[in-house]
Amino acid sequence: MLLPSERAKDIGASPIRSLLPHAYEAKKNGKHIFHLNIGQPDIATPTNALERVANLKESIVSYGPSEGLPALRTKVAEYYDKFDADIDQENVYVTTGASEAILFTLLATCDNHDEVIIPEPFYANYLGFAHLTNVNIVPITTDLESKFSLPAPSEFEKLVTSKTKAIFLCNPTNPTGQMYTAAQLEELMAIVKKYNLYLIVDEVYREFCYDHAFTSVLSFKGVDEHVVVIDSISKVFSSCGARVGYLISKNESFLQAVNKYAQLRLCPPYFGQQLALACYDEADKYIAEAKEEYMLRREELYAQLNSIPNVKCYKPMAAFYNIAELPVDDAEKFCKWLLTDFEYKGSTVMLAPANGFYFTKNLGKQQVRIAYILNREDLKSAMECLKVALEQYPG
Amino acid sequence: MLLPSERAKDIGASPIRSLLPHAYEAKKNGKHIFHLNIGQPDIATPTNALERVANLKESIVSYGPSEGLPALRTKVAEYYDKFDADIDQENVYVTTGASEAILFTLLATCDNHDEVIIPEPFYANYLGFAHLTNVNIVPITTDLESKFSLPAPSEFEKLVTSKTKAIFLCNPTNPTGQMYTAAQLEELMAIVKKYNLYLIVDEVYREFCYDHAFTSVLSFKGVDEHVVVIDSISKVFSSCGARVGYLISKNESFLQAVNKYAQLRLCPPYFGQQLALACYDEADKYIAEAKEEYMLRREELYAQLNSIPNVKCYKPMAAFYNIAELPVDDAEKFCKWLLTDFEYKGSTVMLAPANGFYFTKNLGKQQVRIAYILNREDLKSAMECLKVALEQYPG
Repeated sequence: MLLPSERAKDIGASPIRSLLPHAYEAKKNGKHIFHLNIGQPDIATPTNALERVANLKESIVSYGPSEGLPALRTKVAEYYDKFDADIDQENVYVTTGASEAILFTLLATCDNHDEVIIPEPFYANYLGFAHLTNVNIVPITTDLESKFSLPAPSEFEKLVTSKTKAIFLCNPTNPTGQMYTAAQLEELMAIVKKYNLYLIVDEVYREFCYDHAFTSVLSFKGVDEHVVVIDSISKVFSSCGARVGYLISKNESFLQAVNKYAQLRLCPPYFGQQLALACYDEADKYIAEAKEEYMLRREELYAQLNSIPNVKCYKPMAAFYNIAELPVDDAEKFCKWLLTDFEYKGSTVMLAPANGFYFTKNLGKQQVRIAYILNREDLKSAMECLKVALEQYPG
Repeated sequence: MLLPSERAKDIGASPIRSLLPHAYEAKKNGKHIFHLNIGQPDIATPTNALERVANLKESIVSYGPSEGLPALRTKVAEYYDKFDADIDQENVYVTTGASEAILFTLLATCDNHDEVIIPEPFYANYLGFAHLTNVNIVPITTDLESKFSLPAPSEFEKLVTSKTKAIFLCNPTNPTGQMYTAAQLEELMAIVKKYNLYLIVDEVYREFCYDHAFTSVLSFKGVDEHVVVIDSISKVFSSCGARVGYLISKNESFLQAVNKYAQLRLCPPYFGQQLALACYDEADKYIAEAKEEYMLRREELYAQLNSIPNVKCYKPMAAFYNIAELPVDDAEKFCKWLLTDFEYKGSTVMLAPANGFYFTKNLGKQQVRIAYILNREDLKSAMECLKVALEQYPG
């Protein structure tokens, strides 16, 4: 018997996608599923962007530049003006989704067995990409009681070793829906300067901040060589399937390293880049409407969650996620049970067990991540479903 | 100064793309360039496929399945019927270009420091992906004198160690334009069975075989667990920018490993998959026409090359590449000189130095890879250019 590599065994299945077979089975049996497990917005992709793709006149879908289409790099650089980021097109690399930006960033900042400090819970795929690139994640735990706020700088400093190459943040944060303040980021800047580290920030949810203005790390002065930002059109423009992301930095030697990986995979997808180009044309209006909708959903979700007995939650400040602690023995078992054994008015709800977002074993065992990416009516029905389920769940 | 990773330094710039800055400069100065350096066909993408993309009605460009769209997997499985491959849709993973299929295959077959035997010269990006995945390439040298034919099985066997996990072929071969016979492949099958190895075959050029019928390794019986095939729509359907490739295998545990990496990057690009879906609808006619055109170009190129004094070449059997040995001191210097110092009738020619396709240092120093992806008129002019250049080149 010819077996696959050992390393593939160590990559855990995605906590967001691992329950999918049970979901397919439930659907086959006629059950309706409220999908709150995945960050797939139900908001329409910008119409003008879809039209641009429909009206393309090229007769050959040919390779583009490895760095991305120049016109797109320019548009993205301009877009960052609103965040006080002084970015030129050469600072922008177009990637195949934020996923590839994460991969290239880890490859170009870290060697095998280098360390990256990341607050947990974190987007589970960081772990997969760290594993793929032989980078060691050093988690710094945040907790629901303190609304997953950023630990003090001294806590980060304690974790710095000779192997540390970067501090990696997601801001606003998936899976917690929290965001970090300018003051907090400034404190981290002092640390990355002191220890000569990269500060990698995944800002894909930056447009959805509901209570305070967002501060991009690209706006800080004097830290050009330290900052790497990861971005994507997936969430902002509801274009997850286009596979267009960005990697932004002003560190030239880092970008030269990225360029080698970019050349290796030839180029990012042509059609997705064309879609992205048009997304920026009517961005302000589109984003404002999407943000308004998510804000209303946040209120709805928070009100509904609060009305369920023994559910611990907080009001998220940003993105479209919330972590809730449920009165269950094991959230993963519960999430599976929702799909296989439960039904209310012909429906059930699919959630992401939060344990998979923690690096430290046994954390988040009773927690779930809820993505508020459905309309309010559906969100309400989904939470009604959850309430009844918690009454009936035997565990 | 904050430096990038050490590992990025070890990745050589692409021999196909590394001269691009000089090409941009030449173009800026008004020079016309015949691009024979890159496998970017000038043949139009199938019209019905472009129309399919133009007529898509989805309002949300959402995540698709990590494995690829079920309809596309089914079509691809059916397409393989003509190669006597008994493939089901579950055996097909859609990837972001053949590039990603190579990456996933190395990750899912090899652990760090495992070995893969590859005939050289080989597609240079194999080396980059092997480096990225910490896999060691063990080259087996083929040479121009014997038209780059496959070494005897005993030569492969000599290189097998306890670390060997796979034999990796490109068939038909980029950069040599040669192809391997059914008998040769059968002999390698005996070796991979004897030593329990994978046989990975990149078959992206399989539709362009001019002298003999092509044999896919998918048609062999009794080797299901050993065979992995890499494929792509880039060359066959002139759709390089769509970024759609495939990884095909009947080894279930290998595919389960691949699935983890597929989930990690979420999904392949939506628009490219939609384009690919339509490509298979009128494939036979489209491919026959493209093949006919490449065959005529092959004749043209071979005749022209043969007419240049002191150029050593052979008639390629497949794909759209040829390696030629030139009467120059250093092909890389010569290729650069063509862009920076030479001009004939306002034009020059861009070629890929072949040295970058060899793993063993100092091999192929006088060789170039020529991609016959321009129309015959242009090919003729390009070869005229090359002839004059060889007369004038000081080295």
